Amino acid sequence: MKALEEKILKDGEVIGTEIVKVDGFINHKIDVRFMDEMGDEFARLFRDAKPSKILTVEASGIAIACSAARSFGYIPVVFAKKAAPNTMTEDAYTAEARSFTKGTVSLLRISKKHIDKGDRVLILDDFLAHGEAGLALCDIVKQAGAEVVGLGAAIEKTYQGGAAKLRKKGITVKSLAAIAKIEDGQITFIKSE
Amino acid sequence: MKALEEKILKDGEVIGTEIVKVDGFINHKIDVRFMDEMGDEFARLFRDAKPSKILTVEASGIAIACSAARSFGYIPVVFAKKAAPNTMTEDAYTAEARSFTKGTVSLLRISKKHIDKGDRVLILDDFLAHGEAGLALCDIVKQAGAEVVGLGAAIEKTYQGGAAKLRKKGITVKSLAAIAKIEDGQITFIKSE
Repeated sequence: MKALEEKILKDGEVIGTEIVKVDGFINHKIDVRFMDEMGDEFARLFRDAKPSKILTVEASGIAIACSAARSFGYIPVVFAKKAAPNTMTEDAYTAEARSFTKGTVSLLRISKKHIDKGDRVLILDDFLAHGEAGLALCDIVKQAGAEVVGLGAAIEKTYQGGAAKLRKKGITVKSLAAIAKIEDGQITFIKSE
Repeated sequence: MKALEEKILKDGEVIGTEIVKVDGFINHKIDVRFMDEMGDEFARLFRDAKPSKILTVEASGIAIACSAARSFGYIPVVFAKKAAPNTMTEDAYTAEARSFTKGTVSLLRISKKHIDKGDRVLILDDFLAHGEAGLALCDIVKQAGAEVVGLGAAIEKTYQGGAAKLRKKGITVKSLAAIAKIEDGQITFIKSE
């Protein structure tokens, strides 16, 4: 998505060779009009997957998931909560996800009543890096007897390998902007669909 | 908002005399179409306040804030992050908020670059109970030299006193559904605007 690549170059902030900060329009301050444009793009990319529900993780996936849900004609959104691994998890599906940036492990938790057997789940998130959150959500969907029909990320950092891991499990992965590398503060994108 | 009262009665879950769970359409699974209706209602209620920005708290305020931002003609949303009180907070405004439900204190944190002096800030959230999050956000807006032009909640629990505390500070407070009491599993609403 050309517009996202341009916005990352204009408003994003590169830290070292690993991190791109987009807290000015995606995950702290939110440009809702731009979220809606990204939502439309996700609806275009995953139209044929015919999702019945969108799954994401709190907090930064919520805005993008809601915009996409509207673009799909108002399908429900469910966001996984991040609990401490020792939190009570009765009647919930859970899976652990490591955050490489924060150096922490959280337990993603979704109430059993919010995923139905037979649901066609599209997983959306702001970032796809090492793929830990995506893999944990796939695990939860499987526990629920539902199907992952695709996984979309606004920004993919291909050099952190998450998409490759997910594709090896048979998941269709698409991102709106895929970063191949960051060098000397310069971002190199991979050509998008 | 009659539609919200009806939805709370239909899909909400009462626990004891204090708690109403709305995780089936607001804060775990999200009914995005209904969020948009609530967003329109916030835009109607606070039209004359002419907000330039909406402030909320992660995670459950984000969806409602984004819907309202669209109804206001796409104004920016900023969500406060909940950090542990010992987290690095360089270049951020912070204020402590106690959660009576969870028995915890979190430090709400907003990057200084995301609130401008002169901003007309509308604070929105899913719940208004004891008012701790609202008061903390008001404190942050004041630190930034901006103005709180209103505070809106989807669901107000009047018996927990938050709105009264905020009004005493001169804040205009409006909610879409105000619960006067819960008794024997029965919810009594206060007539809405």
